[in-house]
Order: sequence, then structure tokens, then C-alpha cells
Amino acid sequence: MTRMILSAFAMSCVGHQSAGVWNRDDDASTRYTDLDHWTGLARLLDDGGFDALFLADVLGTYDVYGGSRDEAVRSAIQVPVNDPILAVSAMAAATTHLGFGVTVSTTYEQPYALARRMTTLDHLTRGRIGWNVVTGYLDSAAKNLGFTTQIPHDTRYDIADEYLDVCYKLWEHSWAEDAVIRAGGVYADPAKVRDIGHLGEHYTVPGAFLCEPSPQRTPVVFQAGASPRGRRFAARHAEAVFVIGPTPEAVRGTVDALRAEVAAAGRDPHSVKVIAGLTAIVRPDASEARALLDDYRASASTTGALALFGGWTGVDLSGLPGDAPLTHVTTDANRSALDLFTRDADRTWTVDELARFVSIGGRGPVLAGDPITVADELQRWQETAGVDGFNFMYVTMPGTFEDLTEHLVPELRRRGLVPDRPAEPGTLRERLGTGDGARLPAGHRAWDLTIPATEPVSPG
Amino acid sequence: MTRMILSAFAMSCVGHQSAGVWNRDDDASTRYTDLDHWTGLARLLDDGGFDALFLADVLGTYDVYGGSRDEAVRSAIQVPVNDPILAVSAMAAATTHLGFGVTVSTTYEQPYALARRMTTLDHLTRGRIGWNVVTGYLDSAAKNLGFTTQIPHDTRYDIADEYLDVCYKLWEHSWAEDAVIRAGGVYADPAKVRDIGHLGEHYTVPGAFLCEPSPQRTPVVFQAGASPRGRRFAARHAEAVFVIGPTPEAVRGTVDALRAEVAAAGRDPHSVKVIAGLTAIVRPDASEARALLDDYRASASTTGALALFGGWTGVDLSGLPGDAPLTHVTTDANRSALDLFTRDADRTWTVDELARFVSIGGRGPVLAGDPITVADELQRWQETAGVDGFNFMYVTMPGTFEDLTEHLVPELRRRGLVPDRPAEPGTLRERLGTGDGARLPAGHRAWDLTIPATEPVSPG
Repeated sequence: MTRMILSAFAMSCVGHQSAGVWNRDDDASTRYTDLDHWTGLARLLDDGGFDALFLADVLGTYDVYGGSRDEAVRSAIQVPVNDPILAVSAMAAATTHLGFGVTVSTTYEQPYALARRMTTLDHLTRGRIGWNVVTGYLDSAAKNLGFTTQIPHDTRYDIADEYLDVCYKLWEHSWAEDAVIRAGGVYADPAKVRDIGHLGEHYTVPGAFLCEPSPQRTPVVFQAGASPRGRRFAARHAEAVFVIGPTPEAVRGTVDALRAEVAAAGRDPHSVKVIAGLTAIVRPDASEARALLDDYRASASTTGALALFGGWTGVDLSGLPGDAPLTHVTTDANRSALDLFTRDADRTWTVDELARFVSIGGRGPVLAGDPITVADELQRWQETAGVDGFNFMYVTMPGTFEDLTEHLVPELRRRGLVPDRPAEPGTLRERLGTGDGARLPAGHRAWDLTIPATEPVSPG
Repeated sequence: MTRMILSAFAMSCVGHQSAGVWNRDDDASTRYTDLDHWTGLARLLDDGGFDALFLADVLGTYDVYGGSRDEAVRSAIQVPVNDPILAVSAMAAATTHLGFGVTVSTTYEQPYALARRMTTLDHLTRGRIGWNVVTGYLDSAAKNLGFTTQIPHDTRYDIADEYLDVCYKLWEHSWAEDAVIRAGGVYADPAKVRDIGHLGEHYTVPGAFLCEPSPQRTPVVFQAGASPRGRRFAARHAEAVFVIGPTPEAVRGTVDALRAEVAAAGRDPHSVKVIAGLTAIVRPDASEARALLDDYRASASTTGALALFGGWTGVDLSGLPGDAPLTHVTTDANRSALDLFTRDADRTWTVDELARFVSIGGRGPVLAGDPITVADELQRWQETAGVDGFNFMYVTMPGTFEDLTEHLVPELRRRGLVPDRPAEPGTLRERLGTGDGARLPAGHRAWDLTIPATEPVSPG
């Protein structure tokens, strides 16, 4: 049996992938500003067999629908949104095994500062941190963060390539393995704490890293970009990649293209774990699960869903009546955007149908059933799509995750897909099996880099 | 009796103000990478009557001594250093009343991102966050963070003035008091979430704030700059100011100058709390406390102390023998730097004497005695210097704070200087009494600002 990676997907906001559900009595999403909301969720996932909690982030608002952010604000569609990195230490203190993935953009912060934040989190979590590297895609973020407009997509990735190289030099090469002595009055050997001497096109970082090595040194590198340039970036850097698509057959193409790119980058194509985003409503009784999904869809916000849709695709559907067929979408780019959301590209959807579909689980597929049916379907995904695990979105918080840990995980354990929790906590990298123990695997980009007058540090 | 503010001063590093003490068996500073080191400290201070824990920070190394960072690395003088903001949520979860002050520079991060971090912390701590605003003073930081050299001192403060204005607009003016509805499908009223439209000399932030209002909105603003420009900045923005000086008489001049500047800025001069930094070794028996201080000084690192001294003053004493008199310090600037560290400017100090003096408690005064003697001395400081409280540095971690909470605080409580802990936790601002309840006081700079097509939000 193949090991199945279980990740929970959330965000420090009210409405993440399901729109307007905060209004339900059985949802506690509005408590996102309370610390015990997060420590409780982390404990639930840790006790319940999840490998990691992933936190999304944006630094802007979704303002395509109706040409403004109004609907996003009204329905709390990823706004208000707090910083995802700040609750991690409290969640780490409340748990022993769970990993934490945080989304941070390379576009709006200097690598020297971000590298220190990540290392601090890796220390405080004892090696349970991962970084979902994004480059930012919202114009509304860029213009508030020192840019007159968003940097072009591919250029953002060029800059991000250099950004990660700076980080690897700081994390892996500045402090030698035996730099820290911590005895006889000598804390660290200054000869073994080295300047990285980075003088690049986008960043100048001549100095040494400020932090001593943490358990993983480099946090587990995650990536989610699906564009050709994003895929090339992932092939070079990522240890795990998030994908999304309506069917396992559709996702298979993405996975194959990714693994081919990883091989082209000189790495073992199966060394990169692929994790598919989806929503699963699991109840002991299948009809109860399906009724719950119907109830969720009936109570969700369709205008909120279209605000999400607009932000992701750039397509504003606000001017159309609900029963309008989506035939106005004529350009290839928009058609491709719509295809993301529909299982059947040949059928003509109405605006209302699309909104109702997107309102629960966003652009990901939604499974609803009993534990056996859903476990079967996840196995089919694993085999057909060739993915290594799943990033579970929630509808209600923490209800969806309570159902998954109570009903689904025991069934996955029975099938040998999810291991029992080990007695001793380890690092996130060890848990996911993406590296050489706690450290980046041999062959990773980080080992190609050198710093002045030194040899690269070997991972072993 | 005047209320005495008690703040603990620490840093996410091994050696903060006392050099090389980590080498002692009774010091646990090397555990700074462990989360329970911080949660344990926070609980100790919270239970022990402290108002706040303040965390210093630098983003560079002290590299004046010997012309390199080597001695700082060897003796762990504020390097390695982790990010101070990331342990806060864990410490908040472990406590109920304690405030947390974090040092963050305005020079290396966009206000739009930092404002969100602070609001997130204010939410997660339920209003127990303060911000020690610094502008960064180390060349070694600047050159790794996108600058070819440090921005000139006064210019940094000009930029910081605008930086804080951007933050106030985001924190206080973007979301109206009644913007959040959280009912009937409407999370927030889009008409009451407003663009700040900031188009300034250094920052362009046209949009709305990403976060809903937190308990304090603006974190309690702390400042520590002692230069004329720094004092003008404090007079405009700060609710509390850290000062440091060898004697209460010397500090009195600083406090008077500050209060005059506050009055000149149109604010009540006593609305700004002044907090003096010092080290206090308190044991039930005075001779034991004095013996402990002697023992600390004997085991401290004098070269580490000179590395600290070099970083603070720019004066490199590495080339001089230990018995060299400090007569080579001839310029006014350097003389003034040395005066910071010596109670008696007329006496000629040797390098060794200076190093031994600085090695415990850095540039601050050191008190050692029984609870009654130290309480008397603190009261004399309060009366003579006109300060409102103290920022206690530690020698051993957490030993110094254990002694203070066990021996000193009960004596201060007996004198009515420190109140009993209230049953209900409140915000840091309420605890320090610097505002209008949890909010900034009337007359504060933040209320002079407006955003397009709106009136300023009143604080009440």
C-alpha cells in the first residue's frame, strides 16, 4: 500500500474555499481571531492522524467581481485576513507531531528577514515547519506593497529563483555543521560562520546568517503554481507540490507534466510528493453526507463564490443574470479558467450553476459519502492521478475536520494507508519522506550552490 | 503612591545585556530555541506580577570590535538571534494578563505587511501587544536587507514618521467602528471599509486594511531613541519610552527633555510613560546578592562585553592592553559614548575596568541587594529621575526573573507600588494606563490623520 499524506488546508480568515458558510450555526470560522480556535484545530488534527496543517495567505483582496472588493468584504471572502505565521508557535506548543505549512510570498519581503523567520519557526516547532512558496498574484496586494503594479508572472518566478538561492545559502551554507561549540566559553566558532557573499541580479546579501542551524535547516519547500513557469520553479525547488483539478484523470496530466519537469531538472521524479486539493464530507451514513453537502450548498453565498471565482480567473460575472449561459466566455484564456471549475467542459453552465458549484470547496472536487466510499475514491485518485496525498479543504470549521479525523482516518488506517502515530515526534521532512532524514535530499538545488572560499556542506 | 511599571527585558538570543553568562551552570539562555523556554518565562512573569515582557531585536551583528563579528559569534553576543515576534502566540496561550512588547524596525519591511502582523498579534493576544519602534542602527543589517549602506539617522526617522502615519491610517481609519456586522449573511459593510489613499514621499498605500479591528487597534507604541531626532519622534508617537542612564540624576535630564518635547508636540507631558532600563540582583540577604554580582562579573566575558560596547558606540577597544587608560577617547562623540557607561566621567577608566563594568547589565545600572534596599533604590529612581517604571534586564535566565518575582515584587506590592493582578485580563494599554481605555488617547497623532472622503474616527 502507498502511504497517503493527509494535510488540512485552512487560512487565517473567515471564508476560505467555501463561501458564506460562517453564517451557519454549525460553523466557528468567525473565531479565527482567537488563539484557542487555532490550538484546538491543531490538537484535533495532531490527535487525529493528520500530517500537517497548511495555511494559505493573500496580501490583497478579491476585487474583480463587480469591479470592487465589496462582495468579498460583505461575504468575508478571504478578507479580513490575518498573518498566517503568527499562530504557529501556539499551535506547536499544543501539539507534538503535526507539521505546519505557511504560505509566504517572495515578492514583498527581503530574503534575509524571511529566512530568519522560517528558521525561528523551525527551531520553535522542532523541525515541523514547511514553506509554501508563492510569488503573489493579486494586483491589490502589489500596489499596497511598494509596487505600482504587479511584476509580470514569469519575472516573479525568476526573482523567486534567486530568492530561494539566497535562502539556501543562508540556511545550508553559512553555518558549518560543527560551527556551534557551546562549551568552554565558545558558543560558536567564528571561522565556521561564513559570509554568503551573494551579489545577484535582484538581491545583494553579502553577510552571514543570523541564526544557528535549526532541525531541518531549510523548511520543507512546498509549491502550488500550475503554469509552465511555476512548474519549472517547482521542479527545481519543491519537495511537495499542491495540485488541483476536477477529476483524477485531469490531474494525471498535471502530475505527469510535473514529474517530467522534475526529471528534466535532474531529480528523481518521485522524490517530489504531489498533494491534491479537495473537499470531503464524510459521515457514517452516505445519505447523511450527501444531505449535508446539499444543505451546505443551499446555505452558501453564490455571490461570494463569484467573488472568489473572479479573483482566481479574472472573469467578472457580476453583470449577468443567474440563468445566463456562460457562452460569453470566448477567449481561450477564459475558457481554460472556467474549465478549472467544471467537470464537463462540453456542457454549457449557467452563472447560477457555476456559482452554486464553486460555493462549496472552491475550484476543487467535492466528495461526500461514508468512510468506505470516500476512502475508495481517495485510493482511486491516488492510483489514477498518481498523487501522494490530499490537502483537505473544510466547509465548516472545525466540523469538516472533526468528521475526517473521526470517520475517515480510522478507515484509511485500517487499509494501511495512514500509519499510526510514531512514539517519538520527528521533523516534517522525515514525516513526509522527502529528504535525507531531516535534511534536504541529495541532488537538491541547494547543494549546487557554493559560498566564497568554502565547499558546499554535504547533507549527511 | 505612584504605580510602578514592571517590564522584563529579553531577546531571542543567547547573550543579551550580560556577556558570556550562558556558560554558567545556573543559566539556561542556550535554550532560547525551545518553545517551553519562552512559555515558562512568560508564565513566571505573568504569575509574578510583571506587566510586560519586552523583546529586543537586531537584524545584524556587532562587528566593530576587532573589525569583525568574530568576538560576537564566539561569545554569542546577540548572535545567533531569532525573530522575536514568532514565540508571542505561544506565550500568550500560556498566560492571561502579561503584555508583550516586540521590537520591529520600520526600515526593512513595508508598513502594509507589518501593520497586518501587529494586528494579528493584537487579535491573538486579545490586546496584549506593544510595538517597540526602531529604525535599525547596524550597517551589517542594512547591507543584507537591500541597502548599500545604512540610511542616515535623521532620514530614517523622517521615513519612520510617515511609516507610522500609514499604520495609523490602516489601524484606526480604514475600518469604521461599526464596519463588522457578522449577521444575516453580511460579515462587514463594504461602505465602512475604506481605502486609506496614502500617497506619500516614501510609501504609496492606496488600499484598505486587510484586517478587522483588534482590541487595541494600534498596538501600544514604545520607543527608545535618545537622540534629539529620536526624542522628537517619541514625542509625536510614543505612549511609553525606554531610557537608560547610570544614575537617576543623569536620567532626570533625559526625562525632562523628553517631557518638554511631548508638551511641545501638544500632548500632556505625563501621558507618556518613561521606563528606565536596569539590572537588579535581589536576594533575601544583601550580602548574598552582592556576592552573586561579584560572581557574575568574575565569570562574564570581558571580550564579549567589548564587542557589545563596540556595537553600541562604534569604538573599537580591541587593540589596547587591558590596563590601558581610556585617554585615547578624545572626540566629543566618543566621550559621550563612554559617559553612557560610567557613573563618574571625571575618573579615568582602564579598558579592563570598562569591560568588567559593561559585562553585567550592559550600559545600564546594576543594583544588588535585599528586597527592601532595592525597593528603596527603585523608589528613589522613580522620584529623582521622574520615571514610571523599569525594564529589568537579566543576568541569568530565568534566575534573575525568578529572584525578582519571588523577592522584589512582594515588597513592591507591600508598598502599594504594584497592584494585585485584576480578576479580568485587560489590554496592555489599559494596564499601562496610556490610553483612553484600550484605544489610543485623545490628542494622539493618529487622530490628526484623515483618509479620503471620511472624517477621522473618534476614539471613544
